[in-house]
Amino acid sequence: MTIPVLEPHAGTLHGWFDRDLPPVLTVDPGTTVRFRTLDSGWSAGPHTGGERRRVAEHAPGMGHALTGPIRVRGARPGMVLAVRADDVVPGTWGTTYAGARPTAWNARLGIATAAVHSWEIDVPAGIARNQYGHSVALRPFLGVMGMPPAEPGRHSTVPPRWHGGNLDCRELVAGSTLYLPIPVDGALFSVGDGHAAQGDGEVGGTAIECPMERVDLTLGLLPHVFGDRTLTTPVARTPAGWVTMGLGDDLDEAAADAMDAMLDVLGALHGVGRADALALAGVVADLRITQVANQTFGVHAVLPPGAVR
Amino acid sequence: MTIPVLEPHAGTLHGWFDRDLPPVLTVDPGTTVRFRTLDSGWSAGPHTGGERRRVAEHAPGMGHALTGPIRVRGARPGMVLAVRADDVVPGTWGTTYAGARPTAWNARLGIATAAVHSWEIDVPAGIARNQYGHSVALRPFLGVMGMPPAEPGRHSTVPPRWHGGNLDCRELVAGSTLYLPIPVDGALFSVGDGHAAQGDGEVGGTAIECPMERVDLTLGLLPHVFGDRTLTTPVARTPAGWVTMGLGDDLDEAAADAMDAMLDVLGALHGVGRADALALAGVVADLRITQVANQTFGVHAVLPPGAVR
Repeated sequence: MTIPVLEPHAGTLHGWFDRDLPPVLTVDPGTTVRFRTLDSGWSAGPHTGGERRRVAEHAPGMGHALTGPIRVRGARPGMVLAVRADDVVPGTWGTTYAGARPTAWNARLGIATAAVHSWEIDVPAGIARNQYGHSVALRPFLGVMGMPPAEPGRHSTVPPRWHGGNLDCRELVAGSTLYLPIPVDGALFSVGDGHAAQGDGEVGGTAIECPMERVDLTLGLLPHVFGDRTLTTPVARTPAGWVTMGLGDDLDEAAADAMDAMLDVLGALHGVGRADALALAGVVADLRITQVANQTFGVHAVLPPGAVR
Repeated sequence: MTIPVLEPHAGTLHGWFDRDLPPVLTVDPGTTVRFRTLDSGWSAGPHTGGERRRVAEHAPGMGHALTGPIRVRGARPGMVLAVRADDVVPGTWGTTYAGARPTAWNARLGIATAAVHSWEIDVPAGIARNQYGHSVALRPFLGVMGMPPAEPGRHSTVPPRWHGGNLDCRELVAGSTLYLPIPVDGALFSVGDGHAAQGDGEVGGTAIECPMERVDLTLGLLPHVFGDRTLTTPVARTPAGWVTMGLGDDLDEAAADAMDAMLDVLGALHGVGRADALALAGVVADLRITQVANQTFGVHAVLPPGAVR
């Protein structure tokens, strides 16, 4: 059986979420799809200084370069889309833009000028090296995996939403399954924003933004993740453990939402009520800052494998 | 040479920070001191239900049960106290109190009743087991290591401060060195608040609060940690890497302070300016929530060993 392959071209690329974009592929649940993606910024090639060179498909006002959307047969609002990352292989180059935007965060850190790091990515060696000779380990994942809001019209790709999008969670590496509540019939799933490596927080505003040479995702449908509870926020099972994600206008709000969902996970896994789940969470769950880069901030809670036995 | 030993008794126990508490021990820089500590709550023994039984030295209004203070010869404000944790061994029992206080955090999580978990600690096996049969891995550290504010009078032990105190950072395990700016002549260092295990965030309000059977700390004095920069916030070198700590009235403020200090670390280690340090931090540094339990919130940034080569 051949894996369907989605290449980034005029027919598949889009720079917003919109439920009325026609699907470019329809699949049955359980299908593995192979994606290639541009970097988030629609770059035509490695950054070589000066203006960013973009592909012809880019137009002003577009957000991340997304590939898709894919319609999943039988997907309905209220169900769960399970996105299993089987393989995630970056391209040969990437770029980090730091301090480029006049955000409160950058102002607070006293960042007056922007820095641009241009990285060569060596997949066999597992490292990326910038123009100053710094090298870092690869840990590739997709920054954007998501579906359009139920409301019609074009929606920015920048803020992450309860049905996914620009989550930028560093734990979503190969071997992870991301569970997302489905907002629209058919799911209409799109991806992009390859990150070759990123720390918790994405504090510079970007990661190592890179094209992805090959991303194999298996798209499943589930009624629920835990028991018969309706999923309302992004949850993932990753090599680092169960991950629950909170989103908010500030970190306090995002942190509370992430922990709220983690109490559900602990409750489901260990059959305990919320206060007992909170006692366990304080001992074994890790609350980490996902990103401060995307207007809506993210915090995630991690429950490492075997943390409670 | 004999290691000086500080036992918790009427002469060494105190429930506040106060620069005018007489030191119970004076040491030269480089001295290793062995501490025994009570649990944070002055408990006389394991929690067996009902009212907490406390030692006779406890009086109403006291905070964490601290052992000390120790005067370090030659310590002056503006210098750095280096606290190297050589060995950290918990006692045989601990307690977790979750949702016990009417905080905004608990209200947001819908925690209506408190949970108390009573843990048996098995040091040889490396685990703690609660009354429900849940077991978790030990990862012991001291929640409170600090010095009194320069301002005279009694100061609460609850909020962490730039010169240490109730930091509750889970990375401060054996093998770590914590660097603290010294606020007062002689440093007047005290410790307490043993934690047998705690997640990032200490989201339940407490960790596994336990007495410490033996904590060996080596107290050093340094003019600076990096170059000739004056240290102004807690920084540590831990098995997880360099850790910088931010404190604030909310998580956004704490996060910015932690990252501000991490940019200094990256600048010192790799000879880069702030914008380039921010670009690297976005790729390799991890911003994590230290605690939401101590009135003043904590966020720390972690730079794993060898993250940038």
